[in-house]
Amino acid sequence: MKPDFSKRVRKLRKLITESKLDALLLSSPRDILYYTGSKLTGDAAFLLVDLRSKPSLIISSLSNYTWNLKAAKVHFFSDFKDIVKEIDGYNSLGFDEKNMNTGIFMKLKKLGIKLKPFGSKIKIPRMVKDDWEISQIKKAIKLTENIFQEVRFVGRTESEASRWISKSVIDLGVENAFPPIIASGSNSAFIHYLPGKRKIKAKDLVIMDIGVRFNGYCSDMTRTFCQRPNKKQKKVYGDVLEIQKQIIDNARAGVRFDVLENFSKKLYEKLGYKKMHSTGHGVGLSVHERPVSKDTIQEGMVFTVEPGIYIKNWGGCRVEDIVHIKNNRAKLLSKLSRELTP
Amino acid sequence: MKPDFSKRVRKLRKLITESKLDALLLSSPRDILYYTGSKLTGDAAFLLVDLRSKPSLIISSLSNYTWNLKAAKVHFFSDFKDIVKEIDGYNSLGFDEKNMNTGIFMKLKKLGIKLKPFGSKIKIPRMVKDDWEISQIKKAIKLTENIFQEVRFVGRTESEASRWISKSVIDLGVENAFPPIIASGSNSAFIHYLPGKRKIKAKDLVIMDIGVRFNGYCSDMTRTFCQRPNKKQKKVYGDVLEIQKQIIDNARAGVRFDVLENFSKKLYEKLGYKKMHSTGHGVGLSVHERPVSKDTIQEGMVFTVEPGIYIKNWGGCRVEDIVHIKNNRAKLLSKLSRELTP
Repeated sequence: MKPDFSKRVRKLRKLITESKLDALLLSSPRDILYYTGSKLTGDAAFLLVDLRSKPSLIISSLSNYTWNLKAAKVHFFSDFKDIVKEIDGYNSLGFDEKNMNTGIFMKLKKLGIKLKPFGSKIKIPRMVKDDWEISQIKKAIKLTENIFQEVRFVGRTESEASRWISKSVIDLGVENAFPPIIASGSNSAFIHYLPGKRKIKAKDLVIMDIGVRFNGYCSDMTRTFCQRPNKKQKKVYGDVLEIQKQIIDNARAGVRFDVLENFSKKLYEKLGYKKMHSTGHGVGLSVHERPVSKDTIQEGMVFTVEPGIYIKNWGGCRVEDIVHIKNNRAKLLSKLSRELTP
Repeated sequence: MKPDFSKRVRKLRKLITESKLDALLLSSPRDILYYTGSKLTGDAAFLLVDLRSKPSLIISSLSNYTWNLKAAKVHFFSDFKDIVKEIDGYNSLGFDEKNMNTGIFMKLKKLGIKLKPFGSKIKIPRMVKDDWEISQIKKAIKLTENIFQEVRFVGRTESEASRWISKSVIDLGVENAFPPIIASGSNSAFIHYLPGKRKIKAKDLVIMDIGVRFNGYCSDMTRTFCQRPNKKQKKVYGDVLEIQKQIIDNARAGVRFDVLENFSKKLYEKLGYKKMHSTGHGVGLSVHERPVSKDTIQEGMVFTVEPGIYIKNWGGCRVEDIVHIKNNRAKLLSKLSRELTP
């Protein structure tokens, strides 16, 4: 079971034909990995896909070249002229406006090429995962679950817990998919947070939001813990769990993602809370990817379900798991318990 | 000794006046840190600086707000409309084309605002470092030197050595400024490289390129090691050291950076090699920043001097140190030995 790059590129070509473009210029490292299997150094890189030729991987001459040469020809560039040489002759190019800086865009525009923002469409083939991709995401989740089971936090500062997690991630042979969020006590009322010097206490709500990248694929998982919860903490946490359960039950193929968002908004309101952030997002080679908002949920899609309740100066609770749409139902890819007190 | 944000913002305002703009829209997290002291989560953020008002920090409503409120007003945004509200009323905005994706740029352009690429000029104030910045860079270098002194590599794979370094970086309470490059044997002929499964041997040349980020400021340092070098390895490494020495001797205030590049090109050629990459780059809050190419070296600037010789299928040598221009001379900020066999 291995990724079929030709099949993936055929999907891109279908988009090229439908949109009457000559070619697509991809510039996200995740897309380049998806369409060619090429893992890149941090240097700028482009993948040019047209209707006929083998895709062209255009990479910095400083990079090494241990790529998948079956899936793409490799062209090196030292300066912008070398890039221009490769895209010369195409009249209309779809490009990834969310993964191209404006400096490059302005240079390309000067060449007289018709550039069409195509960033959203380029991501369409990545929305539905094949079995191999599911197995990679499952492995990433399994490793994350190991970390949740091992991490100690009471008595440590948020930063110390975060550093412990980052070291465990390295020991497991993977990478952080994003910097771990460890938010304790009243800090747990923040949705995105940088771990700080606060020492975690037994009475604190502690939100831990962790993701690792295994073979390119991300996990993204949140648990809220409290060693000695009071009544209110238990109540709020229970409400979060209830919201998550109902969202998962209602996530079906054919439902638009924003309809699910709206459904979850009503759940919050019924329980007396305000919906503070989106209820989930696609996950795969990127931590955040499609499906989002106007996308319709389909068989094979993978996304997070992550309700959260945040009360200023008091704290917050969030729980996040990844589901996979299979036989029309949202199936959890994680197995980890959701006990507030582990 | 603390950063003077008002003084820094005054320099930006001088640029605004000279360029007859209404305001600048900054979008690089490094610039926002430099001009306001605000450390950000990974969410999008903008800093709007005009001639009169306190700078406006426009950040995602998902982020927490533990920022330096003395240096900026904070405005939260949930969607693009909220950003538009803040920049409404300005006719001409300088923006950072290298740190703004084309999607945002196209949305801003639709508003009818005159947008001027200003990314290079925004970085001018950051080129010359004050004493506080030098002390931060020195600390980052000191921590990197500790790692070079402790790292064992013979008998480990490149990946294992890389993971050991990443864990040490965490133990030292800092972050990788970039993923460590560990290239051994014939892999050391690659300039940018992803550490792999190759087991490092005593006879290998091993290039280690490591940088950490301390309090925002980066180190960037390379050593080449070989436990049992042969004659050719010693010769090539000696040539690299000689090139570095001569570049450092010739790096003076008043010399243009590309003149120094050209000088080093001739050094390589005199010794029978080809110059494969730039001889150095500014370093500070970014690993790569100005001065580059057409910038004239000035008192207070900080940059790397990093000659490298690469021979395909044989291997390579690189040595990289950071210098600080003081009393018109390039003074090394690092103290670590450059012995090939440690």
